[in-house]
Parts: sequence; structure tokens; C-alpha cells
Amino acid sequence: MEIITSVQNERVKRIVKLQRKASARREAGLTVIEGAREVSRAIENGWHPTELWVGSADGLAFFKTLEVGSADRPVVFQASEEVMDKISYRENPDGVLAVGPLVGKTLAELELPENPLILVAEGVEKPGNLGALLRTADGAGADAAIVCDAATDLNNPNVIRNSIGTLFYLPIAEATSEEAIAFLKERGIRILSAVPDADAVYTDVDLTGPLAIAVGAEDVGLSNHWKQAEPAPINFSEPWKNLQVKIPMLGKNDSLNVSVSAAVLLYEAVRQRK
Amino acid sequence: MEIITSVQNERVKRIVKLQRKASARREAGLTVIEGAREVSRAIENGWHPTELWVGSADGLAFFKTLEVGSADRPVVFQASEEVMDKISYRENPDGVLAVGPLVGKTLAELELPENPLILVAEGVEKPGNLGALLRTADGAGADAAIVCDAATDLNNPNVIRNSIGTLFYLPIAEATSEEAIAFLKERGIRILSAVPDADAVYTDVDLTGPLAIAVGAEDVGLSNHWKQAEPAPINFSEPWKNLQVKIPMLGKNDSLNVSVSAAVLLYEAVRQRK
Repeated sequence: MEIITSVQNERVKRIVKLQRKASARREAGLTVIEGAREVSRAIENGWHPTELWVGSADGLAFFKTLEVGSADRPVVFQASEEVMDKISYRENPDGVLAVGPLVGKTLAELELPENPLILVAEGVEKPGNLGALLRTADGAGADAAIVCDAATDLNNPNVIRNSIGTLFYLPIAEATSEEAIAFLKERGIRILSAVPDADAVYTDVDLTGPLAIAVGAEDVGLSNHWKQAEPAPINFSEPWKNLQVKIPMLGKNDSLNVSVSAAVLLYEAVRQRK
Repeated sequence: MEIITSVQNERVKRIVKLQRKASARREAGLTVIEGAREVSRAIENGWHPTELWVGSADGLAFFKTLEVGSADRPVVFQASEEVMDKISYRENPDGVLAVGPLVGKTLAELELPENPLILVAEGVEKPGNLGALLRTADGAGADAAIVCDAATDLNNPNVIRNSIGTLFYLPIAEATSEEAIAFLKERGIRILSAVPDADAVYTDVDLTGPLAIAVGAEDVGLSNHWKQAEPAPINFSEPWKNLQVKIPMLGKNDSLNVSVSAAVLLYEAVRQRK
């Protein structure tokens, strides 16, 4: 096991770049996972790290408890506290960090059950919001999430942190809105688009069939791709039609946080599908 | 109108302190509101600033559009860009800032309608979460919010920012949990406590009467004050009993973000009360 004490080390610099830049992650095809809980969840769910970094004897003991397949042969580094601070994005790193392949699937890789509940998030800008959305989708038992045209990538450290690990077990695909709409249509999955000026209230709509709930970016909401995805009046005799719905805004503000909106819609679907 | 260009000015230093420290706000009885939208909402809703700070001619024009009662006679200061940056908590200040009395009510000052819907938030640590909770309460049309034993004060700049102004029009009281429970009992308002290991699912409970929905801190949830508030089995013939309810966690995580939990519970109450 190599011991690394210099923040000038090339491996250290590379991790700092992976933490900071989506382009560096994309080019290298690598992401960084921080924290004992997150790393262990990722590995349990089939992620194969190429490098394991530990900041202390505790970190090393932690790694020995992990079931890292011998075929993977990750390289283990022991880092000084200064190095660990340097490569960590978090403020109080717990001395466990791993480098490995990017997380996320393509649409073609999504395996869906017969009557799926899917969360679609379009154009989300803040990594914290995207992470919170994924956490919410997991809580409501969504079968998958599709992230469309996001201003942040799935492997951003703040997405990973705010999703509290959801990224590693919820099937999540990145796609364009066009690709996602085509994918959903092909499979007969109804699209429920959250639009502030829709006529229908979400609680008045049948949410029991194959369903994708689409929420839009913080400021501008869903793009016309989703608004024009065959919007239809409420018509329970044609439950396969896509619909626009609104969440009633009963106070003085005109919007909810995007993960709050997603939660309200997803949990109404859960209630109806019970 | 005084023009202030030095960041060493005593008034500048005082505002910086008010922005940074809850204790400074409490001692002075003063808070700082930033941004044209927030300041105008606060004034519209009866807040009386003592100082108005503008960073540019635009800011000055903005203030002239405000209906600040002449009896208030706020002092107006024009600040250099450097000073405006110094006194602003936000990264991109829009050149409008005001100083005035602390926002928030006591329990005794809360005016409630006959069949109130109230959000109670206990022990919230992160100002951003508290702000998001208040925004959610406004969206769901709650009549009031009660903030108990919070690790942050209502007048924290991040609470104000994340509540997107809700602070100025939603009646919000700060109190201890004991005080809040006594207040609710006295008025016959049923307490619905969100507890992960409760037996009852929130959708199975009658939420139509006078209701306070209580959610707890990020890590530890509600304290025993709320858990011991006469928990009762589901019994629709005794709808006045306080109840513990859970939100089903259908994925692999064991919790939702606190404002997401509040939204799910509040909007189920909205659905039932329609």
C-alpha cells in the first residue's frame, strides 16, 4: 500500500480535478465517492472502484470489511490528513474515499417492472436539488429516474452527497428530453407533467397505471418538449394520455421547491396505487 | 441622504454583525432584509424598516416606489459597490437592503381561523431547511407555522432567502416545544407527529379538523415532547386525539428531507380538506 503525503502528487491533483469538473469526470470516465456509508453502498450495489483512499487506520479497517471482489484489484492508498482534506469535497471528510467508473445508465439499460413509476427531472441546475430529487424518488419507491438536459451531471459531488447514496441503487438514466419522451411513448408509459398553469389538479387524475412524473427546472419549469407531449384534458376513459397537472399554490408564493413538488406528486401516486 | 463609501464605517460594521450573528440580532432587536423582492414584500406586509440602503440609482428608484409610511421615517443611505458587497450576505446583491425590527411572532400573537392547518417544525438545524419548510407551509396554505427549539433563528439570512419571503406574510411563532404543545392543546388543535416508526400511515388518518403537523430535526426527528403528546391508535370516532403517523419509505433510504416530509403531510391534509 502506497503512502501519499504530498498534495503535489499527480494522483492527488487528478482527484481534485475529478471532484471539481464535470468535463474531467467525463473525459476520464471516472467519479469520486466520499464517505464510508456512500462507498459501501456503492460497492454493495455493484460499483467497482479502481482506487481506494484511506486517511487513517480506521479507514483501512473499514475497507477490509467491504466485499471488494478480488477480480477488481483496486489500488489502495493511505493518505495524510492534509492530502485527505485536499482530495475531499466535504468539509469534514471521514477518511474514506474511492475512485471508479461514472455512475448512471443509458435509457436502454433501464430495466422496468410491468407497472412502473418513474421520476423525470428536466433542466435541474443545482446539484443539491438534483440529489434531493433522487432521494425523494427513492423514498416514494420510484422504479427509476430519468435526468434530462440537466445543468449538472449525476456524478457531481453535491448530487452524490444530497442523494445520500440513492445514485447507487436507484436505476437512473441521463438523456435528452426528446429521447426520454420517445422512450416513454414506446413503452406506453403515461407522462404526467407538472405545469403551474395546468387546468387539472394532480389529485383529480388517475395515477395508477404505468407513469412518469415530470418536473422542471427551478426557475423556468418544464420545457415545451414536455408541455407539448400530447397534453390532454382529464379523461378517465383514456388513461393512457399524457396530462399536465398542477399542484395548488394556496399561499402567496407561486412555486414550490422542485424536490418538494416531486414528493407531493410521487406520494399521491403511491397513495392511489396502494 | 448620506453616502457611505468606507467599509470601516461603524454602521457598515454593525450590519455585518447583524448578518452573521443571531446573538447580535437578538441584542439589537434588528434584522437585515436583502433584495428588492424581499424588502418590498416585507414592507407590503407591515414591516417597518429603520434604515434603507441602496447601492445604485436603480436601488434608489426602487425605494421611491415603495409605500413606506412617512411616520416611519427610515434613514436612507447610498452605499458604494464595495460597501454593498460587504453588508450583503448574498453573492450577487441587487443593491437593495433594509434594516428593521426582528420578524416573527409569539404564540399569543398568532391569530388562527376556526379550522386551522398549522406546521410545527422542531429542532431544525440548517437555516436553508427552515426556509424551505416555511415556503412549503405557505404553498400548502397553512394558516401559521410554529418553530420550536430551532438551532437557527427565523431572522438568519439563509432562512429569509430560502423562504423566498414567506417569513413576511405567513404568521410564524418561535416557542419551546412545551409552550407549543400547551398552546395547541388549549385550542383543541390535533397534533399529527411525523415519526418514522409510527404504526399509522398518514393517508389513513382523518386530517380534516383543526390540525398541527409536526416534523422534527434533520437527524434525530421529533423529541419525546411530541412523541409523548398523547399518541393514540387510529380511531376515527375520536378524531381529536393526537396521533403519530409515518410516511412510507418504499426505497432503500430511511428518511426524507424534512421539508419534503412536511410537504407530503401538508398536501395530504389539503387533499382531504377540499
